[in-house]
Amino acid sequence: MEIKILGLDPGIAIVGFGTIICDRPQDISANKINSIGLEDFGVIRTKAKTPLGDRLNIIYDDLHILIDEIKPDLVAVEKLFFYRMSNIINVAQARGVLMLVLGQEKLPYVEFTPPEIKKALTGHGNAPKIEVQEAVAKELSLDFIPRPDDAADALAIAITAFFNY
Amino acid sequence: MEIKILGLDPGIAIVGFGTIICDRPQDISANKINSIGLEDFGVIRTKAKTPLGDRLNIIYDDLHILIDEIKPDLVAVEKLFFYRMSNIINVAQARGVLMLVLGQEKLPYVEFTPPEIKKALTGHGNAPKIEVQEAVAKELSLDFIPRPDDAADALAIAITAFFNY
Repeated sequence: MEIKILGLDPGIAIVGFGTIICDRPQDISANKINSIGLEDFGVIRTKAKTPLGDRLNIIYDDLHILIDEIKPDLVAVEKLFFYRMSNIINVAQARGVLMLVLGQEKLPYVEFTPPEIKKALTGHGNAPKIEVQEAVAKELSLDFIPRPDDAADALAIAITAFFNY
Repeated sequence: MEIKILGLDPGIAIVGFGTIICDRPQDISANKINSIGLEDFGVIRTKAKTPLGDRLNIIYDDLHILIDEIKPDLVAVEKLFFYRMSNIINVAQARGVLMLVLGQEKLPYVEFTPPEIKKALTGHGNAPKIEVQEAVAKELSLDFIPRPDDAADALAIAITAFFNY
């Protein structure tokens, strides 16, 4: 049975998203690499000069549209580490809107911290960004690294959810 | 000319709200105390065991209903001080939903930090909570202190907005 996982990387200026299609682990006959594939990735952007309420509304509307198009079975969202971010309040405010939309769409979700994501993709929790991105490309059999970083991060979160499924 | 100010104290378990009716400063003929009055106060509550997306959705729906009933001219929201709160991420996530709703309702808003609110009400930025609450009661000519604390805080924010109007 195939399931579709949507990964989300929260932010106020950029929300990264990435969708993967995967077989449930018990259905894997050959190897893990063949069991997941890329469906789509991209970002929702909001401009710094736009008032906060309007930026959040863009994220709210675009995420509803995205979910209606993608129809994911599961959503994976980055869990915030407050002591690791300078603009934590704005990221958390945007994340509140993401979680609201997941609640409105009645979608199941899982959450992972950045070290959990890095560990799942590379084997160690403090891996550099490029190593995580190369692992994303390898797992999805891509000959390129998805851009921008926020979209690659979102795919890393989705892949982590698959490994933990 | 009268204006109606809605004060909001963000939180994930409790969102405090308080509405005051005030004259514009240039219309004050007698004294400041008579120029503002209490309209309403209360809280939106969500239960800790409820999933985050559902809690945010309760806040989203209830705030839309509240605004439709109150029809405020201006909203005043507490600005977060991240180093002063232990549960800052959840408070900021809830505040993101509040700001989203204000954007959707196209309402003008002002923001004040806790020290700004304390200074406006008592004259000093590190006043104890009870002193701020007594100032709220005095400004609104009440013979009681509004409860719970979150509602009193919301009224303090609304009064601060009036003083800065």
